[in-house]
Amino acid sequence: MTFEIKSRDAAGRIGIFRTKHGTVNTPTLLPVINPNKMLISPDEMKHLFNIEMIITNSYIIYKNKDLHEQILQDGIHKLMGFNRSIMTDSGTFQSYVYDDVEIDPLDIVEFQREINSDVGTILDIFCLPDAGYSEVKKGIMETIRRARESVNIKKDMLLACTVQGSTYPKLRERCAQELSKLDADFFPIGGVVPLMENQQYKELVECIIASKKGLDPSKPVHLFGAGHPLMFSLAVALGCDFFDSSAYAKYAADMRMMFPWGTLKLDGIEELPCCCPICSKYSALELKKINFNDRIRLLAEHNLFVSFAEIKRIKNAIKHGSLWELVERRAASNPYLLDALRVLENNECKDWLEQFDPVSKNSALFYTGRHTIHRPMIHRYHKRALERYAPLHKNIVIFPEAEKPYTRFYHDEILQFLQKANVGFVVETTFGPIPLELDEMYPFAQSVVSEMTDVETIRFVRKFGNKFYEKYNVLIRYGKDHDKQIKLLKSNDEEEFDIDLLRIKAVVNMQFGKNVDKALFNKKKIKLVKSKKTGKIRNVYADNNHILSMRAHDGLFTL
Amino acid sequence: MTFEIKSRDAAGRIGIFRTKHGTVNTPTLLPVINPNKMLISPDEMKHLFNIEMIITNSYIIYKNKDLHEQILQDGIHKLMGFNRSIMTDSGTFQSYVYDDVEIDPLDIVEFQREINSDVGTILDIFCLPDAGYSEVKKGIMETIRRARESVNIKKDMLLACTVQGSTYPKLRERCAQELSKLDADFFPIGGVVPLMENQQYKELVECIIASKKGLDPSKPVHLFGAGHPLMFSLAVALGCDFFDSSAYAKYAADMRMMFPWGTLKLDGIEELPCCCPICSKYSALELKKINFNDRIRLLAEHNLFVSFAEIKRIKNAIKHGSLWELVERRAASNPYLLDALRVLENNECKDWLEQFDPVSKNSALFYTGRHTIHRPMIHRYHKRALERYAPLHKNIVIFPEAEKPYTRFYHDEILQFLQKANVGFVVETTFGPIPLELDEMYPFAQSVVSEMTDVETIRFVRKFGNKFYEKYNVLIRYGKDHDKQIKLLKSNDEEEFDIDLLRIKAVVNMQFGKNVDKALFNKKKIKLVKSKKTGKIRNVYADNNHILSMRAHDGLFTL
Repeated sequence: MTFEIKSRDAAGRIGIFRTKHGTVNTPTLLPVINPNKMLISPDEMKHLFNIEMIITNSYIIYKNKDLHEQILQDGIHKLMGFNRSIMTDSGTFQSYVYDDVEIDPLDIVEFQREINSDVGTILDIFCLPDAGYSEVKKGIMETIRRARESVNIKKDMLLACTVQGSTYPKLRERCAQELSKLDADFFPIGGVVPLMENQQYKELVECIIASKKGLDPSKPVHLFGAGHPLMFSLAVALGCDFFDSSAYAKYAADMRMMFPWGTLKLDGIEELPCCCPICSKYSALELKKINFNDRIRLLAEHNLFVSFAEIKRIKNAIKHGSLWELVERRAASNPYLLDALRVLENNECKDWLEQFDPVSKNSALFYTGRHTIHRPMIHRYHKRALERYAPLHKNIVIFPEAEKPYTRFYHDEILQFLQKANVGFVVETTFGPIPLELDEMYPFAQSVVSEMTDVETIRFVRKFGNKFYEKYNVLIRYGKDHDKQIKLLKSNDEEEFDIDLLRIKAVVNMQFGKNVDKALFNKKKIKLVKSKKTGKIRNVYADNNHILSMRAHDGLFTL
Repeated sequence: MTFEIKSRDAAGRIGIFRTKHGTVNTPTLLPVINPNKMLISPDEMKHLFNIEMIITNSYIIYKNKDLHEQILQDGIHKLMGFNRSIMTDSGTFQSYVYDDVEIDPLDIVEFQREINSDVGTILDIFCLPDAGYSEVKKGIMETIRRARESVNIKKDMLLACTVQGSTYPKLRERCAQELSKLDADFFPIGGVVPLMENQQYKELVECIIASKKGLDPSKPVHLFGAGHPLMFSLAVALGCDFFDSSAYAKYAADMRMMFPWGTLKLDGIEELPCCCPICSKYSALELKKINFNDRIRLLAEHNLFVSFAEIKRIKNAIKHGSLWELVERRAASNPYLLDALRVLENNECKDWLEQFDPVSKNSALFYTGRHTIHRPMIHRYHKRALERYAPLHKNIVIFPEAEKPYTRFYHDEILQFLQKANVGFVVETTFGPIPLELDEMYPFAQSVVSEMTDVETIRFVRKFGNKFYEKYNVLIRYGKDHDKQIKLLKSNDEEEFDIDLLRIKAVVNMQFGKNVDKALFNKKKIKLVKSKKTGKIRNVYADNNHILSMRAHDGLFTL
């Protein structure tokens, strides 16, 4: 398998990509190497940043008469002085910048194969964000046609087929679908540089989502031309695996320093706001005094240190299940990124994201602001609570948010209520009402929230609450005449309250589907084994068969 | 002057603190050196992090018979192997941790002086956050009494007098006021470690504000025991200049790594989410395999690299005028910090902050979320717009938010309206309605905002708008029957519209006070000199006297 997915969070993944020249751990950033001007050589990069793959431009080499012949003999790896994986671009971007390139689309693919590129790229049609619909449609048809022909001549080279479609989601998706049908190995999302240059992150996100919807989810995806760490985390969360950066060098030449939260001109910096080896060694004043060429080189190193640290931060976040926290934190540093997050708030998008987002994570869910309520994890809970959760009690007492776990916090109150009537219990959490018996399930026992959230979250949760409460007959709010109200209930109307039984039924349904509890437990003799230390349910036996185990850390079942 | 303030942003400042052993640039972090166990020696720290001041505990030295005699001969600088500034603590914190210390409050001050400490600390009474009011009151009275006596014997040593008062703002403020009357040089805010340990940042912020309100604003302030970079920016924004960290070493010993956005155990880290020299040199796996003592040392270095980078980030933000952006960004990484920001939303607090927050900044104002609208800069505009701004037209056309500058964007529309009637113009920005003539004034021309903000901001701005529009007779909304409405106005009812005259009058009043325009311009012949390049007003002459110059970058006057 060329691409193997190892871990997931959001729609992002940690993967291993295999080429003739070795393995590449993703997500990652491919430094762009200009064969005519190497600011930092690939070999140096290997030692400084443990680079596993670079990208260079085959079109520039093809056009350069001095290089052309030599490289056909020696291969691209010798020219680059790099024995790991090398991807080559095809000249499409040059067609965008310089309007026209003179090359046959198949010749350039063949050339890439001949120079032994690990991943070659088709010569696709760059469609501008503001291009007309029919022009873009024509463009993607031609891109698809070229891809189809290119696949036939790729031989042992991995082939990157670029998704175009401008800012028309339907065309993007269609292009992606058609390309996915081919024997292609790698899918760049192209034509997005103008969006990134204008910080049109909202449109960028729409392009990524439309492309991803059409692509084979098992294949690696490259956000072509994305080199600023500010948006790496969001792009990874949407399923991008590769970035490429010429920005590290271009920004450096322009005396600009990249940070995960933005860009600053060295000129205006009084104290270097960074702890990278360059910024830890020099003061801003010292850096400004260094001779021009050395300064460019140092700034380029800084830009790469910062960019690769963001990549590591993202990978670590995926492992911890805290990628959304990172994405939302980054959005707080750029108003246009905040706008982009809004794209993820519509239900269609949430449904799409929910497919990929794991049901349980290794770290607590942190509230970071008004976007948190729109995370796929919360969306999933809201949907399943309405569709799958079947309360065993139609009369309930509603408790306000409290210390976790709620069952322990409200232990005494629960006993008092149950002496008066058989009722169920619900806790109104930051993320909406939850049945008490779900209080150990991720993310409810594992969340860190503000004392006060925000009006939008409160409104959103109230809407969900209104629907959720339709399941019940009588709602009694704790603390508000609850004694009077509970007397009005016909006692023993309902089943006896058994928190353990409620818990296993509720979790099973939330996790596996509506009425699964009936299929699993009905008319069977249920026996529970609990942890002596924590009192938590460990194993569930039905008619003496061990059918389920519950995980302590997230309150979910393993079969 | 012992403490000199060089730059300001929010209520934070960049300063220079002078001791017998040199200057200390603030804000800064004083690494805590345990004389019995130096993980990284002060001399190494000087080379690694350019440390200008450290803190150590005089009580531990006093109690250690081996050290005591030697140090009285040699002085603290020799013992520490550090020839820059050294601050000593007094044993107060030991009284909190170990319940009792046996030492005379004046003896320990004298001892600090004898060992040649640059900044000695009084033995104050540590008041716990949950202590009773009368107990705390007794505590601060005793602290004040001891401070008064200690000041008399400090001689050439700078003396730190610690503000106590538990979580009672009035007692904090009173303690601070009383201490400020003494000849003290340095003011730690004490008794806050338990709050920080529990992440009670809301209460912490209340303590800082109450203390700062009582303190002489020209004196340096130290947040005692604060060593996690997560809250440095907020504390600096409220006027703290010094932090001290034993956390770098304690966390390291516990295999925990600090980041500006939180803490992680090395154990659970798969990729080091950082670019410091340690994290750039080692992989997580390599770091985990290094022998225990070396690993502690490396983690301590990492913790200090990260902490000092945050200090530099804060200093740079103060210079740029972007400290609030940094504070709000950090808050997005911790739900309790978000709660703490809410303390800054009440009007009394905003009025207090507004005194310190500069009227103009070197970088654009960024919207980061629901807190942005509560910044002192916006509060000031809202207050002054209501109190100082006197419209010259009572009938206005209201434009929606647009590209900046608004005068240019709406140029054609303005001319069309003025052909029909003499009216004024207002633009409804993210931060509320502004008269068109203020469109070049900071922060309106210099702000970066989301396309959509949030419900709370919209509500808040609407309330301000309602009050602001009381100044006017007829409000005509652009695009909504505006032609019909404008016909109803009696034409030429009002003064002719002259954007330049409106601008200088409005800016003068907003900047210097109500009706200042009348005092400056009335019955005088006004002449304006404009920039040939930008068309912006440069100089204002009244009766041929040059009375004002307008700055191009923020649209404000210099006299």
